[in-house]
Order: sequence, then C-alpha cells, then structure tokens
Amino acid sequence: MIYLDNAATTFPKPVQVISACVGAMRFYGANPGRGGHKLSVRAGETVFGCREKLAQMFSCTEERTVFTLNCTHSLNLAVKGVLKKGDHAIISSLEHNSVLRPLENMRESGIISYDVAAVEPLDDEKTVKNFEKLIRSNTRLILCTHASNVFGTVLPVKKLSALCKKHGLIFALDCAQSAGIFPIDMEKDGIDIVCAPGHKGLFGPMGTGILMFSKNIEIESLVQGGTGSLSLQKSQPGIYPDSLESGTVNLPGIAGLSAGLDFIKSRGGEKAIHEKETYLMKILKEDLSVVKNITVFDNMHSKIYSPTLSFIVNGEHSEQTAQKLDDRSIAVRAGYHCSYLAHSFCKTTRSGTVRVSPSVFNTKSDVKFFVFSLNLIAKNGKM
Amino acid sequence: MIYLDNAATTFPKPVQVISACVGAMRFYGANPGRGGHKLSVRAGETVFGCREKLAQMFSCTEERTVFTLNCTHSLNLAVKGVLKKGDHAIISSLEHNSVLRPLENMRESGIISYDVAAVEPLDDEKTVKNFEKLIRSNTRLILCTHASNVFGTVLPVKKLSALCKKHGLIFALDCAQSAGIFPIDMEKDGIDIVCAPGHKGLFGPMGTGILMFSKNIEIESLVQGGTGSLSLQKSQPGIYPDSLESGTVNLPGIAGLSAGLDFIKSRGGEKAIHEKETYLMKILKEDLSVVKNITVFDNMHSKIYSPTLSFIVNGEHSEQTAQKLDDRSIAVRAGYHCSYLAHSFCKTTRSGTVRVSPSVFNTKSDVKFFVFSLNLIAKNGKM
Repeated sequence: MIYLDNAATTFPKPVQVISACVGAMRFYGANPGRGGHKLSVRAGETVFGCREKLAQMFSCTEERTVFTLNCTHSLNLAVKGVLKKGDHAIISSLEHNSVLRPLENMRESGIISYDVAAVEPLDDEKTVKNFEKLIRSNTRLILCTHASNVFGTVLPVKKLSALCKKHGLIFALDCAQSAGIFPIDMEKDGIDIVCAPGHKGLFGPMGTGILMFSKNIEIESLVQGGTGSLSLQKSQPGIYPDSLESGTVNLPGIAGLSAGLDFIKSRGGEKAIHEKETYLMKILKEDLSVVKNITVFDNMHSKIYSPTLSFIVNGEHSEQTAQKLDDRSIAVRAGYHCSYLAHSFCKTTRSGTVRVSPSVFNTKSDVKFFVFSLNLIAKNGKM
Repeated sequence: MIYLDNAATTFPKPVQVISACVGAMRFYGANPGRGGHKLSVRAGETVFGCREKLAQMFSCTEERTVFTLNCTHSLNLAVKGVLKKGDHAIISSLEHNSVLRPLENMRESGIISYDVAAVEPLDDEKTVKNFEKLIRSNTRLILCTHASNVFGTVLPVKKLSALCKKHGLIFALDCAQSAGIFPIDMEKDGIDIVCAPGHKGLFGPMGTGILMFSKNIEIESLVQGGTGSLSLQKSQPGIYPDSLESGTVNLPGIAGLSAGLDFIKSRGGEKAIHEKETYLMKILKEDLSVVKNITVFDNMHSKIYSPTLSFIVNGEHSEQTAQKLDDRSIAVRAGYHCSYLAHSFCKTTRSGTVRVSPSVFNTKSDVKFFVFSLNLIAKNGKM
C-alpha cells in the first residue's frame, strides 16, 4: 500500500513513537499528576517533558501548552473559551468544519457573529485586505488555517498577524496541516493561539491534540472536573494548564508524541521536512500537468504551499477515482475533507476532490507510481 | 513495585491490550471514518467493533455509544449536554469533582441549580429518601457515582433508578469505579446515561472515555467540528454518535480498549472479576482491623462494596504515609482524590486519606505485604 493520506494522519509512525507508547503502557502506566508514587511521578515527568519540548518548538510557555483529544477540541477552546457575548470573529474561506461549526453553533445561539474573508492564493495583500474590510468595532478574533487541508494553500500568517496587532485583535492559527512541517514561532510570528493535532505532522499517535496560547490570552474551560490540583475547591481551578486539562490525559499518546517531536529533530527539523515534502510535491505537480482528463486545483496554491493537493478526474466523482486508486493499493482521500467552506469557495461541492498528501516517509517512486496509476484511470474516465 | 492504585488507572494492562494498540499503529494506522481506502476502512472497523462490544456489554445501541477523551468529558456531556436553563439536578455527597465542577460552573453562570443528597452507606432506603426529599418541580436529572472513588461505597443504583422513573427524571451514572467490575445493564437497571473511563476497570489505555445513553435521551454536543459525515453542512450533524465525536478519535486507544473488553470476558466477566477483587478486599479489611494507630473508613462501606478503601495513620497527613509506602515500593494514592464533596462529607479535609485499590492482577501476598509494611509505618506514626 502506498499511503498518500498524511493530511488525515501520518502513516507510518516512526518506530520510536510506537516504542514510546508501549514503554509508557508497560513500564510506568500510572496516572500522571494523580499520585506521589514513583510510577505516577515518572508518568508525570513524561507528560511534562513533552510539554517542554512543544513549548520550546513553538515559543510558548509550558503552563500555556495544553493537551487535548484532538485539534478540533483545541479549536473549540480557541473559539468558545475566548469569544464572549456580542463578539465578532473573522475566518478565511478555506476553513475546516472544526473552525466553522463551533462558530456557527455560537452564532445560532445568538452569542456571537462572524464573517468569512476570501483567500486570494497568489495575492497575499489582497487576502489581508479582504480580512481588514470585515473588521468591525466588536471584532475580537481572527482565526484561520495556516494551510488548507483541501488545496494546500498557505495563508499569509505574518501579514495577518500584523493586521491583528494593528487592530488589537486576537490572532489564532489552525496548524492542523502545518505543525511539524513549517517552523512556527508564536513570539516571532505574533500568533496568540496555536491549535494543532499531535498525530499529523508531529508524528504522535491519534488521540492527541495541542492548544498553545500566549501570556496576554485567557481561555475559559469547556469541560470541568478533576485536575489533580486544588481538589478541595468546589469550582474549576484558575491555573493553567490544569484548568484546561480536566480528567486523565492520554499518557501513552503523549509519550508517543514526545518521541514524534524527537523524530522531527532527528530529520533536521521542520524546515528540512518541508524541503523534502516540497521536492515530492514538485514532482507530483509536474507529472500531473501532463495527465489528460484531470483538473488539478493548483490555482489554489500560494507561492509556498504545503504537501497537500486536490484534483478530480473530469466527469467522475472523487470517491470513484479514490476507489480505483485503492484497487491499485494507493491510499488517498476523496470527498469533502470536512470542509464546507473550501468546497463552496472553489465550487467543488458536486464531485468533491481527490486529495493527495505525502509525508517525509514517501519517496519519489511512490509519487511516480501514483501518477502512473492515475494516468490509466483518467484515460478510462468520462470526458 | 506493588501497584495498588487501580482506582486511578489499572496497571499493568493485559498484554493483549498493548499488542492491539501497537497493531493499530503499525498495521492500519489510518484515520477511521475519514477515507474509503483499505487502511481507513480497517481502522473504522476496529472502532465500530469496540463500539459494538460496549453496546452489548452495557445494553445500549452502537449509535448511542460515544468515545471521548476520558470519563470527565463524558460526565460533562451528561451535565452540559442535557441540562437546560432553569433545570435542577441532584447529586450524591460522594461525587467526584468531574460531577461537581461542571454543575458548579453552570450554577455560577446562572443556568441551573443543584442539590447534594447525603449517602447513608448502610441504609439504602434512607439514601433514596434523601434524594427524594430534594426533588422539585424543575428537577430533571439525578447524577451520581456508582461507587465512590474515595471510600468504595456503592450506591443503590436500582432503587435510585426506580425513584427517577417514578418522578420522570433522567438517571445518569458515573461508572468511573464500577465499569468492568460490576455488571451494568442500562436496560434492566433503568440507567439513562452511563459515563465510564476506558482505562480503569475496562483495561483500555489512558486517553479513552465512554458515554452511553438510551433512546429517550438527547445530548447536545459541547464541541463541534469535522465528523467525517455530512461535510457540506454548515452546522454540526444531528446524528449519533457523529454529533458527539468531532475530530479524530483515539484509534490506538480504542483498539486497546477493545482488547481490554475481551480480557474481561476471558476472565469470566465482571462478576468473576468482582468476586476476585472482593476476596482481596476481605483479606485487606480483616488484616487492617488489627493494625494499631490507623483509622479505616469502613463506616463508609455499603453491604456490597467496590475494590477501593481509604484509611489514615492517626496524626499523620495521608501524603506522608503514602510516601513511606512508596519507599517500600508500594504504590497507593494519598490526598483528596479529586473529591471535594466526599472529603467534606466525611470530615477528612485535613489529612486527606490514603486510598488502596487492588485490581484483578493483584494477589493475596500483595495485600499481605502492604499490611505488613503499613504496620511498621503506623507503629512509628504519631499518636
């Protein structure tokens, strides 16, 4: 099987990630932060160690680096834990449903309002202007994806961050497709909130999500409960990360994630990984450009893009194409990729798109074999 | 290390649980329900298989069996996803902070009110009467623990369920300390909502929680996002389990949990496990009864009790005792066990308690060695 569905989750995971998970379960599988005995302390150290690595990697503090179930939970905290009654938010036209739906839920409840700014892939200035035009007196948050999970479009993070500074807005970034692939420095890039999955570019196991936020931001909990701290207090403690981490955390997952972060370092860091993936993407784009009877949505690519690309075989539903590729042992994802906005914006709601997303584990020959197979499929597709 | 902290998380995990986690990561680590290719389908089957086993075990339906991060998240859904403005809830005096704090959060926001019913460990009728006295015209929910995480007290589930039926109330049960140890039949026992951790008596890995609810109950999502279904819909889909499972689920954790459920079966089921643990608890109680200078809170035990017991060495803070036991390679938990209510109710807020909680993996000699060590420690304790 040639796996080209890394935008959904990276596979395979580095062996050291699996070893770390197993180690946590076999040798010190106690509840971290919930006891003073050696096993619990060891478990707590592993969790803190991962927190420390993340804080360093993204220029955040340990206490404002929070473990969640997945990036969706992190994004919900960035929306519902931040916005108050009467606030207004602006998002991009390429957002995932995990950004759109919590906002839509708050809008339906009459709590907030939001607007959608159109992204112009090859004109960052225009994209920023589209955001700026929508700013109102009650705008409090700009929340957008770093890189589209459908088309790979990269948004102008620094320019949007500057816009937020200028207008005193909070800038939150959905790094679902960029964490581990692009260097992200919350301080230097002026990002107030980062939401990321642990199981994509950071190579951790599924069941891990991350929320990071800077010192000027307060985030309210959505879930309250035992935090292993201030247990005699009736209400949720106000300290971070405790207030946002109720209940038992995913110890084996976090141990694996910690090893995933080490793996990134061992491969030369995010920059080197991005270079390798860009190399594969260039081959992919070049080879796809001569395949007949397909439409590649490369008009959605910005100058720099992430390792994700969408296409369709003309006249065929994306699910059919993906099925034919699966028959040839190639794993890609078809359909709508949980993104109502991106597909509405690009008018691909009828067929959906086939998404190809390599990781650092893929090779040139994987890409070549994929295009070779697609060529055969597209030839037989309807015109 | 003799591990007697199973009320925090069971350790060790059965080998087949670890193997199942590894298998999911190594052989089919794709995103379940997010693609049509073979790996994703295989992952989806594993998740569904676990859902099926749970539904069967607790007499629920698959679509109303939801995977969460932990029992705390499940309890928050049972509280915040169910109660509406103006509702009133009743909980017991032995609740964990994961029950108390979400209710307190809603009360502070002026949304709901709640009352606390005193538990009478040896008088189930009185316990039920204490609940009944608190019922008002706007009472909608009784939510209580099945078994106290501090004292092991078991609440009269069937009697409370009958009370709820009589008054048309929703009955929700926190099975954090009982799932996998007591047979729980939602249909026969008349339980509307069950919240459980995957990583305690069900022997799954940390990072897994379960919410199950009957057909007459509707639960609103707290977190919205991608569900892999109805992706072109702007708002959260209304179908279960999708609406309550936004974002990527913990595939390796769920694969492990599935193996944990098989392990329970292989050991003769919950009843056989409870028998084995009761056997250990009887030895423990008997042996503790002759240790001088300690106070065992066995006044908090109901006729049937769960494998959890609390004590203190007189005049010593529980943390000190646990530290001394840890020095002798015995892992127990000291302090307040995330339960403001239980400690307030039993007046143990000064010293906290030392909690001992064996699992089916413990032996008679573990218990004997624990009591032997405690004897030495207690002798030297302050009077």
